[in-house]
Amino acid sequence: RRYRVAVIPGDGIGREVVPEGLRCLRAAADLHGFELETAEFGFASAEYWVRHGEMLPPDWRDVLGGFDAIFFGAVGWPEVVPDHVSLWGSLLRFRRGFDQYVNLRPVRLLRGVRSPLRDREPGDIDFLVVRENTEGEYSSVGGRIFDGTDRETVLQETVMTRTGVDRVLRYAFELAAARPRRHLTWATKSNGISISMPYWDERAEAMARQYPQVAADKDHIDILTAKFVLRPDSYDVVVASNLFGDILSDLGPACAGTIGIAPSANINPDRTWPSLFEPVHGSAPDIAGRGIANPVGQIWSGAMMLEHLGETTAAAGIVAAIESVLDEQPGVLTPDLGGAGTTEGLGKAIATAIGAA
Amino acid sequence: RRYRVAVIPGDGIGREVVPEGLRCLRAAADLHGFELETAEFGFASAEYWVRHGEMLPPDWRDVLGGFDAIFFGAVGWPEVVPDHVSLWGSLLRFRRGFDQYVNLRPVRLLRGVRSPLRDREPGDIDFLVVRENTEGEYSSVGGRIFDGTDRETVLQETVMTRTGVDRVLRYAFELAAARPRRHLTWATKSNGISISMPYWDERAEAMARQYPQVAADKDHIDILTAKFVLRPDSYDVVVASNLFGDILSDLGPACAGTIGIAPSANINPDRTWPSLFEPVHGSAPDIAGRGIANPVGQIWSGAMMLEHLGETTAAAGIVAAIESVLDEQPGVLTPDLGGAGTTEGLGKAIATAIGAA
Ligand SMILES: CC(C)[C@H](C(=O)O)[C@@H](O)C(=O)O
Ligand SMILES: CC(C)[C@H](C(=O)O)[C@@H](O)C(=O)O
Repeated sequence: RRYRVAVIPGDGIGREVVPEGLRCLRAAADLHGFELETAEFGFASAEYWVRHGEMLPPDWRDVLGGFDAIFFGAVGWPEVVPDHVSLWGSLLRFRRGFDQYVNLRPVRLLRGVRSPLRDREPGDIDFLVVRENTEGEYSSVGGRIFDGTDRETVLQETVMTRTGVDRVLRYAFELAAARPRRHLTWATKSNGISISMPYWDERAEAMARQYPQVAADKDHIDILTAKFVLRPDSYDVVVASNLFGDILSDLGPACAGTIGIAPSANINPDRTWPSLFEPVHGSAPDIAGRGIANPVGQIWSGAMMLEHLGETTAAAGIVAAIESVLDEQPGVLTPDLGGAGTTEGLGKAIATAIGAA
Repeated sequence: RRYRVAVIPGDGIGREVVPEGLRCLRAAADLHGFELETAEFGFASAEYWVRHGEMLPPDWRDVLGGFDAIFFGAVGWPEVVPDHVSLWGSLLRFRRGFDQYVNLRPVRLLRGVRSPLRDREPGDIDFLVVRENTEGEYSSVGGRIFDGTDRETVLQETVMTRTGVDRVLRYAFELAAARPRRHLTWATKSNGISISMPYWDERAEAMARQYPQVAADKDHIDILTAKFVLRPDSYDVVVASNLFGDILSDLGPACAGTIGIAPSANINPDRTWPSLFEPVHGSAPDIAGRGIANPVGQIWSGAMMLEHLGETTAAAGIVAAIESVLDEQPGVLTPDLGGAGTTEGLGKAIATAIGAA
């Protein structure tokens, strides 16, 4: 077994955590007898933008389209290029251009990690956020009129399609049906956002009728964020629009201790194009260059990549190694986990634990 | 001093907590020597909708427009009328029709209340959410095309105007400038939502230049929700669009213990129309009719109403009474606060404490 992986470190701490992710992937490959052929790309970074005035080369789809997967760090360096330019010019283009319509983000309180929530122990927080990843609130349709006057008005279109909504709902219901609790919550705001969100509800209700074995209900996004804090144990699979999924997949990991550990998979379930694996955290300019970024989100994203490639045992081995290091080696934890360790130190400890399994 | 107040209990627990709010307002009026003339209205309820097929009488603006303030419970009874119908037919019409463009929602961890966050004590969480309350994501513009086919597409417009954005930002900056910490955070998502949110940032940056004495910065909504959990002490004034403010003002109170205590003021700062005061919580059909709803959000909203009417001392007295009862009379706490008390019991205890001050 041999997999071709495109590696894109991006900006900021992306460049610091990606090497640790690769270190752990290699340890898993050695142990489980598969090969990873990696090719590293410097685009999707502020540095590339400064040189080329673009975030990606014009032929990026050809360059990346043949890989089995993309292992991505983080992009964004607002001092040099505004975030909406860098993100729309790279990450959001990948998600759309490769039709990675599911953004899957596990939220789990791991052993060895302290939740900021009182009385929550490993096992209490363990759910999946399934985020629509190509349409919805993240649209580039709209504009401005009466510029510079008191009548200045800005319109921004949310776009939902039946195809787009149904396919992510179906994915989420399938996931829920295969889990022991068989429970699904869809995020909505149909009481306030009066056209798109009632539509989202309507499609979710229709899908729910096709999955009688799944207990499905909805929560409005406002109360849902509150319940993540008050009753995180009540969730199993949470499916949400692009924006709501974005919010829930930062808030969830915060409740589970730190955003530094949260992984994500931008999945094209039809496998017509490569899927992309990246931590939930961003490029974190405030701590970049100091060697203290938490590499666990990146490493865990690597595990999700292996899972997607069919290397299920290796994937599980990485997650187990992460959990054992976090639980048993407090000396290597990074500052966001309450320790004084380094990115490299934590990455090496996990790689060693993978090999030792 | 005599104030004319329109009272609208609405649905569900709204009808249970409003009487307790009035009880406390009367106690404050007696003590401080002003008069409250109240008129109760049954519209803005599912019951009214069943009888009239509308949520409000056609002349609602005339009926309510002359009052000094509106004291509102909660509306929504989805078994009878879909939420988007009941809300758009009442509460959201008040907010817009009376140009209550600021929704002010204090988030404070009170003595006697246990935060679900570890190690957070009263004093650690004390900030204001200033929510834009008339435009933005809550728009009724948009529609559906290709109904019932695979091409079905739904559009929903977010509308931001310079007038709408600037006036709420100005209100928030003025508030921040008058507080000891002089710190303001604006919520955004300009890295993902590429037209409206960069505009919001642009106006916030322009406003910040007019308030050099205020330390202003932005947080993207995803990380902002995470930071409410991880570092709630880092906020002072948080200003947000309609949707983001809605989310933050449920999440914030959850971090401060319970949504049952959170108050809100829908303010028309120009005083061209009455302002409306209501708890953050909704009508809670799941616990309605059981007499166990927490009345503190309603009572505290009454205090905000008195503040708005100029009865500052009476307002402060109500808040002090709430805090002393929560701290010193655990026997009267409602279930959401960990007690076994009733709506009426807690309301009476607070009214007594107000009178005893
Ligand atoms: C009920 C709903 C329409 C309302 C809103 O979203 O504004 C409520 O959540 C609130 O916060 O006042
Ligand atoms: C950086 C930003 C555009 C991105 C998003 O909002 O999708 C990020 O927050 C994420 O969650 O992957």
